[in-house]
Amino acid sequence: MKRTAFFISDGTGITAETLGNSLLTQFESIHFTSITLPYIDTLEKAEAAVAKINQATKQDGASAIVFDTIINEDIRNLIAASNSFKIDVFATFLKPLENELDTHSSYSVGKSHAIQETSRYKERIASVNFALDNDDGARTQQYDKADIIIVGVSRCGKTPTCLYLALQFGIKAANYPITIEDLEHSGLPNILRNYRDKLFGLTIDPFQLAAIRHERRPNSQYASMNQCEFEVREVEKRLRQVDIKMINTTYFSIEEIATRVMVESGLKRRLA
Amino acid sequence: MKRTAFFISDGTGITAETLGNSLLTQFESIHFTSITLPYIDTLEKAEAAVAKINQATKQDGASAIVFDTIINEDIRNLIAASNSFKIDVFATFLKPLENELDTHSSYSVGKSHAIQETSRYKERIASVNFALDNDDGARTQQYDKADIIIVGVSRCGKTPTCLYLALQFGIKAANYPITIEDLEHSGLPNILRNYRDKLFGLTIDPFQLAAIRHERRPNSQYASMNQCEFEVREVEKRLRQVDIKMINTTYFSIEEIATRVMVESGLKRRLA
Repeated sequence: MKRTAFFISDGTGITAETLGNSLLTQFESIHFTSITLPYIDTLEKAEAAVAKINQATKQDGASAIVFDTIINEDIRNLIAASNSFKIDVFATFLKPLENELDTHSSYSVGKSHAIQETSRYKERIASVNFALDNDDGARTQQYDKADIIIVGVSRCGKTPTCLYLALQFGIKAANYPITIEDLEHSGLPNILRNYRDKLFGLTIDPFQLAAIRHERRPNSQYASMNQCEFEVREVEKRLRQVDIKMINTTYFSIEEIATRVMVESGLKRRLA
Repeated sequence: MKRTAFFISDGTGITAETLGNSLLTQFESIHFTSITLPYIDTLEKAEAAVAKINQATKQDGASAIVFDTIINEDIRNLIAASNSFKIDVFATFLKPLENELDTHSSYSVGKSHAIQETSRYKERIASVNFALDNDDGARTQQYDKADIIIVGVSRCGKTPTCLYLALQFGIKAANYPITIEDLEHSGLPNILRNYRDKLFGLTIDPFQLAAIRHERRPNSQYASMNQCEFEVREVEKRLRQVDIKMINTTYFSIEEIATRVMVESGLKRRLA
């Protein structure tokens, strides 16, 4: 069965999209085509959206599912009149919240980003810059300023994890790849020994690692199953020897890896 | 007035958090302290969460607000018994969706990330790598493979925008800083002229630019108001001359900048 889902907002659409995806993935038997329509903030844009919705409903032979987080009533009413099954997020939850909080909501567009945005922006940019400056073991002099230092074999997911930690949580995350040269000596690389409390390990299934490395450097020694197995086994062993926590990234999304790192490391997010 | 809000999930908590933040920021008169509790996937963890919730309610002298996206019924019931005002996202929306779709939902934890995760992961990693490889004008040979090339003065927000485009939408975004040296010649830098259709401009208020640069290099010529004004004015003029679209990043969050770039460039996201 086939259905079209729309995530519609007068802002970025991230809330409608996040919520909608969470709900729709609970229905495995149905194939959804997802369409996000952000910044639907005029009646003209709303009319164009309605045309798209009605078209999808006609084509699928079944109502399109519409998740919306539109504040403006006129625009919302227009969308509501479309030929669709509608989940109106704000209408559903704002009223009960108003009652509980005994106050009116401001119903203002994009509020979720306007407040404290400048300091939040600066904090995030500073963290992203930190992740970039301290990516891939490029620099180690700033490790005393790091909130966390992610370690693991090359291509196990360290960089995107650090960037996500920076963007989402404002965490200053450095990362250090433990290379085949590092493994010629016993234990952890010297530079890491002073920062034991900040270390956090990522590991990966050697088979998947070989596949990822193969895309980067086809048929190289670096991408060989033998070397991947050796590196993963050695790095895991050395991290376990000194009780460094470790997450296997093989079956997780970047969001999940980063969130698990936050939970298991006990780090506090720096962004509200 | 002061209230504590909890975002609770047996997964990452991103859905509960995104939805909850969107709703709570509609209530400007109340100061919320937000606490995200991800991976509440055992009764023990749920009991600890309940203790925290009850403690907050007691301390604030008003019910904590709980947003949850927990699938497991036993765990959800435990949380439901806490002393709080509860917004149960799945309970509210899954039933109507089941009726509309005429099927049962799978109620399985973390489904939103499990499906197609491997290919999604690879796509994102490839895009993040592309953004890193082509950051800050470091390389220009891969511009033919770029989905978009973000241009603007140094420190106007290009890098985090590119990374967000990569992580969130799977877009391959390069970025090129137009420097004071580039401005010695007329028009756009030569390297960019072959890629006019891929260019997208970011600009920024010179005052904010000076503040940001000042943090990076205090009291430098680079951070002076004079130079910031000159660079911004010149870059804007040159981009306008050849009809390159432009967004002013000064008052927007990274999510908003990236989403606006998607809308205005007409790019299609590569991640479902």
